[in-house]
Amino acid sequence: MNISILGFGTVGRGVYEMICKAEGMKARKVLVLPVECTESFMVTSIDEIVNDKETDVVVECMGGIHPAFEFASACLKAGKSFVTSNKALISEFGIELEALAREKNVSFLFSAACGGAIPVLHNISVASQTDTIIRCGGILNGTTNFILTNMQDNGKDYKEALSEAQKLGYAEADPTADVSGMDTLRKVMLLSSVSFSSLPTENLCCEGIENFSKEVADYVKERDMSVRLMGFCGKTEAGIYAYVEPVVVPSSAVEASISSNINFAWYEGENSGFIGLMGQGAGRYPTASAVLRDLSAVIEGKKSMIGPCCKKIKADNSGILNSYLLYIDGVFSSIESISVTEMHEKAKELREKGSKVFFAQYKI
Amino acid sequence: MNISILGFGTVGRGVYEMICKAEGMKARKVLVLPVECTESFMVTSIDEIVNDKETDVVVECMGGIHPAFEFASACLKAGKSFVTSNKALISEFGIELEALAREKNVSFLFSAACGGAIPVLHNISVASQTDTIIRCGGILNGTTNFILTNMQDNGKDYKEALSEAQKLGYAEADPTADVSGMDTLRKVMLLSSVSFSSLPTENLCCEGIENFSKEVADYVKERDMSVRLMGFCGKTEAGIYAYVEPVVVPSSAVEASISSNINFAWYEGENSGFIGLMGQGAGRYPTASAVLRDLSAVIEGKKSMIGPCCKKIKADNSGILNSYLLYIDGVFSSIESISVTEMHEKAKELREKGSKVFFAQYKI
Repeated sequence: MNISILGFGTVGRGVYEMICKAEGMKARKVLVLPVECTESFMVTSIDEIVNDKETDVVVECMGGIHPAFEFASACLKAGKSFVTSNKALISEFGIELEALAREKNVSFLFSAACGGAIPVLHNISVASQTDTIIRCGGILNGTTNFILTNMQDNGKDYKEALSEAQKLGYAEADPTADVSGMDTLRKVMLLSSVSFSSLPTENLCCEGIENFSKEVADYVKERDMSVRLMGFCGKTEAGIYAYVEPVVVPSSAVEASISSNINFAWYEGENSGFIGLMGQGAGRYPTASAVLRDLSAVIEGKKSMIGPCCKKIKADNSGILNSYLLYIDGVFSSIESISVTEMHEKAKELREKGSKVFFAQYKI
Repeated sequence: MNISILGFGTVGRGVYEMICKAEGMKARKVLVLPVECTESFMVTSIDEIVNDKETDVVVECMGGIHPAFEFASACLKAGKSFVTSNKALISEFGIELEALAREKNVSFLFSAACGGAIPVLHNISVASQTDTIIRCGGILNGTTNFILTNMQDNGKDYKEALSEAQKLGYAEADPTADVSGMDTLRKVMLLSSVSFSSLPTENLCCEGIENFSKEVADYVKERDMSVRLMGFCGKTEAGIYAYVEPVVVPSSAVEASISSNINFAWYEGENSGFIGLMGQGAGRYPTASAVLRDLSAVIEGKKSMIGPCCKKIKADNSGILNSYLLYIDGVFSSIESISVTEMHEKAKELREKGSKVFFAQYKI
């Protein structure tokens, strides 16, 4: 199988190296735009890959939605299978790209887009063939987990912890997508699409870690608890819920042991019960290993992870009741049994009135 | 695909129910020996399944080595694919059965035999196609984990904790296979066969939990640590190591959060890094869900998890150096950097002299 790669950054280089060592796979061309070509396999125009008859599969590791979407469409239209680690692309255009792949009878896989090396999308995709997935979620963003655990374990304040994450390459210069919870939310959208054939795009609730502070870190630590940022989705009679928010867990919980930039993803099947998976959620070789897993699956004839039934839907978080720890203008309190929708709306209202608000779900 | 089942106990019934609900699968006959037939699909002779032309796959859920091995051989020779959750059978005759399946070009899968619902063998099998597995292991026996955590969390002594495990159905009337570490060792043998194409059958080191006591539980608890029974295997330049022993972990470690009858399996790939998986390691539906995953794989054409290269080998634990906590005749001490082989031999020698010995690896 001949594979061309779009992008030659951290992940792209890892994928290239792993393909060179893998049995039955051959690296063909690499789109290095806007980098200059320094090797014979490098090209600077997408047309050289789209029109390359020898390329069977295209791996996209550029990131971002445009031109990744246009490139993906062109490759699929040319009858090439498409594998990507790009969660932004899939959460926005996954359904359209899957339809295109189905039309051309080629493969379209993206298990590297959630959880990095952790085979969570792969396992859910396999499990859902013979089991019913009820809910899934996890600690899905290494940057925020690094910041949170650095603040709680080492007493750093938010700015220090963020700047350290940036120095170590865990956080980008503009960390908004991570710290706002958006990156976690996109991964939740992918989990939902694979688990429930439903891509939730509206009525999502998303709270990040920007309002987490040393005061809260000290407060939970004194009570032998710990804060993590988690995403959740599930299927109930009322529909699909999907949200992201900080969560307080007891220090004996598995989640409390997930520190630094490690991810922890989980799903619950009607028959399998709870399955939790931990590992590197990002990085060159961990992410490349997930791409290679997808390439293996292409060889074995796997076509899709979401199927033709997957639709964009409105989420409904109004039926999910949680208890919360609140920290409003320097005062700690707690609230029992309030819906996710209401909690997120209340925080928004308070902030509009000028209050400083942090809230976190109490995990029972 | 038509599936017949050998055994209609806890797992067999779960598999039967799940097949009845699964798309593309049909339950055909169930061998209920020595139970009496009460339903039309039940048979009491293996020949009725071996000679049944409509049966494509046979699932074995009887347990034990004989007559499971003879039945498996007969089914494979008759050209039927074979799926089993029987770790004793595979650790003893896995290589022979795989050869038979290969000869007949049918599938032979056993991912339910290690970790129950946890897809650890499945994930290693997939990962090893494009990554190199370096080592694997975990908390692989729910019975001993239940006893250990019940002793450490609730202050029970060994006898009380064991009898409670028996009452709850977690431990058998004769708990030897579990508490001696043998069950964990068999799972380590399977992990090694899938990860390294090497089934270690000699020079294995295996220490169970029979010598764990309330005194040790109190000692480690005071030091904010916890004891778990773990299996380990890996590939080094010297060969394959494979052993089972109690391990002391800090209470902040993931393993410390694995309580009651939950399993935790992990593997480390050269590229993926460390991947940990937790979930139900036993029970009707969890184990059945793993069998159904294998049945799905049979439909997709997956033939084997170990391949023709897999050989029985002698393990070598003499190059693996660990530090240990010792409790000999009422005295606690520790020993640094001693080989696994030497530690297990020393304990044996001391016991032969009449000493009461407990030891546990310090996980750094």
